[in-house]
Amino acid sequence: MVHNFSAGPCILPQEVFKEASEAILNFNNLGLSLIEISHRSAAFVDVMEEARALVKELLNVPNGYTVLFLQGGASLGFLKAAYNMAGTHKKSAYINTGTWSTKAIKEARFTGEVDVIASSEDKGFNYIPKGYTVPQDVDYLHFTTNNTIYGTQFKALPEVGNVPLVADMSSDIFSKEIDASAFDLIYAGAQKNMGPAGTTVFIVKDEVFGRSPLQIPTMLNLETHAKKDSMFNTPPVFAVYVSMLNLRWLKKNGGVKAIEAVNNKKAETIYNEIDRNDKFVGFAAKEDRSNMNATFNLVDDSLKERFDQLLKEANINGLKGHRSVGGYRASMYNALPLSSVEAVVEVMRAL
Amino acid sequence: MVHNFSAGPCILPQEVFKEASEAILNFNNLGLSLIEISHRSAAFVDVMEEARALVKELLNVPNGYTVLFLQGGASLGFLKAAYNMAGTHKKSAYINTGTWSTKAIKEARFTGEVDVIASSEDKGFNYIPKGYTVPQDVDYLHFTTNNTIYGTQFKALPEVGNVPLVADMSSDIFSKEIDASAFDLIYAGAQKNMGPAGTTVFIVKDEVFGRSPLQIPTMLNLETHAKKDSMFNTPPVFAVYVSMLNLRWLKKNGGVKAIEAVNNKKAETIYNEIDRNDKFVGFAAKEDRSNMNATFNLVDDSLKERFDQLLKEANINGLKGHRSVGGYRASMYNALPLSSVEAVVEVMRAL
Repeated sequence: MVHNFSAGPCILPQEVFKEASEAILNFNNLGLSLIEISHRSAAFVDVMEEARALVKELLNVPNGYTVLFLQGGASLGFLKAAYNMAGTHKKSAYINTGTWSTKAIKEARFTGEVDVIASSEDKGFNYIPKGYTVPQDVDYLHFTTNNTIYGTQFKALPEVGNVPLVADMSSDIFSKEIDASAFDLIYAGAQKNMGPAGTTVFIVKDEVFGRSPLQIPTMLNLETHAKKDSMFNTPPVFAVYVSMLNLRWLKKNGGVKAIEAVNNKKAETIYNEIDRNDKFVGFAAKEDRSNMNATFNLVDDSLKERFDQLLKEANINGLKGHRSVGGYRASMYNALPLSSVEAVVEVMRAL
Repeated sequence: MVHNFSAGPCILPQEVFKEASEAILNFNNLGLSLIEISHRSAAFVDVMEEARALVKELLNVPNGYTVLFLQGGASLGFLKAAYNMAGTHKKSAYINTGTWSTKAIKEARFTGEVDVIASSEDKGFNYIPKGYTVPQDVDYLHFTTNNTIYGTQFKALPEVGNVPLVADMSSDIFSKEIDASAFDLIYAGAQKNMGPAGTTVFIVKDEVFGRSPLQIPTMLNLETHAKKDSMFNTPPVFAVYVSMLNLRWLKKNGGVKAIEAVNNKKAETIYNEIDRNDKFVGFAAKEDRSNMNATFNLVDDSLKERFDQLLKEANINGLKGHRSVGGYRASMYNALPLSSVEAVVEVMRAL
């Protein structure tokens, strides 16, 4: 058994792999592969509709929102968010909490003025900014709910007053309960808690459609896709299907509330060891620690070789920190069992 | 056995389905699924590099070109083409041969002036325009090599003089030999002859990078992806992998030249029957008939019910014409065996 701590694409449930594998050979007993049928066939339209409905159900999304499965990753989502959320103020506010926020800000500058109202860049993004005020003369506030690279996570929503709220939730969507009604737009790449790489979910308040004063290219306009039930062009069939399977699995296992309890337990387990064990030090500020990605370093780097060897012997995979910060990172997405976190703790104690 | 004439996503070789299915459970004997490993792992980087190399090898792409596997479909490719091919003339030329060309033209208008130099719209797009002149004061000429909906296909390249040539080859790439060196940019959605839905291949002359005077959003700039070996952001892992498997299959079976001979034979078989059989009439002008998509109608519509019933009894799937033109369409992509075409001919004779 491999303990898979990959930061994304990442572990998904074994039963999802099994079902996906079978569908590649014979989907729904059609005698055809999932990937050779028309995306407009009844069988695939059902998949798309179930996937969209599961997103709404699992996140308790109220009426008046539309769920889309698109292509391009959150990286193209940065641009789509900026185009579609633009408004009469011709200015947006962003909180910069690391690599992904920085990229989102860069894309937003293609469509208008950006006010970076708070940033944790001064300390290498090891905390979540607080004490900022959101100006009321902006079209929206954008933030990144969880920062995979640095291991930080917002524990409360920014107080925005009347400003529409937009979040890139790529790395913690479906990991904990959220108040979807607080958002005008949520988007997230699939390849953490939702499914395989290749699709990006958008949860859009219907009032957003048609609001932007900008000329938006067809494929970047969320309304294009909403009008066609997320089938304006050929969707990424396999990625949508496996996301649907994975959301089914989540529902069967008690939904977001139940997985949040497991995720809390996993996070507590590793952070307790990081704090208890003199050989390790956490990277992120304690109050901002991510429940998805625990980042930590060895106090004495000369132990690196031995620690890496012990991890390898214990079949622990993907614990290396992101190349931009180094150290270690335990990505503990929904499908990662507590026993895998306990395996890491055991190695940390054996060091 | 189902005869799968789906227009795309479409039939792929059975051995590709088998290998893909296995990789979902255990990829490269890693004890991990293809879709749970890091896209930056050596195992997946190898897949991406092999896929890119196979495109070059199979299409005889000369040095000085870069192959990319991106997301968004040809539909987003329309915009990428326009952004990246823009130049000092601030004007582009397009040939309009149907639905996809029309969409490409629409997106190009976001970035500059478009001169539609030829169109077959006057006859419902049932032919390929000829006798036009390509103006020399444009940044590029764009055309759609094969038109799935109408069943027309360019049999020769437009004569462009010194104007850079751009083609959307979504529905006939890898089906016949091409002179890649004649193009500055080729792009194609995977879901016909290359692989499953979810990725789009771009073959870019290196001189194109940095040529555009436009400010191009990061993800739409082909140079962004070229600089990162098609891994700027998380690629659509599964779609790239299956495309690679399918290109391996094509190479093993003699490459594009060999499949072209089979494709010619399949097309000849069905068109001969359409012309011989008084009950049917072809939709496209004879000299412009597509070898990928044969479109035809019943002369007497009252036979429709019986013909559809006979097709069903023969396990023939996906022969219904596109909703915008009606009638019938036999999509005969690379993996469709001649025997499936013969099965259709048999039913046509039995009617």
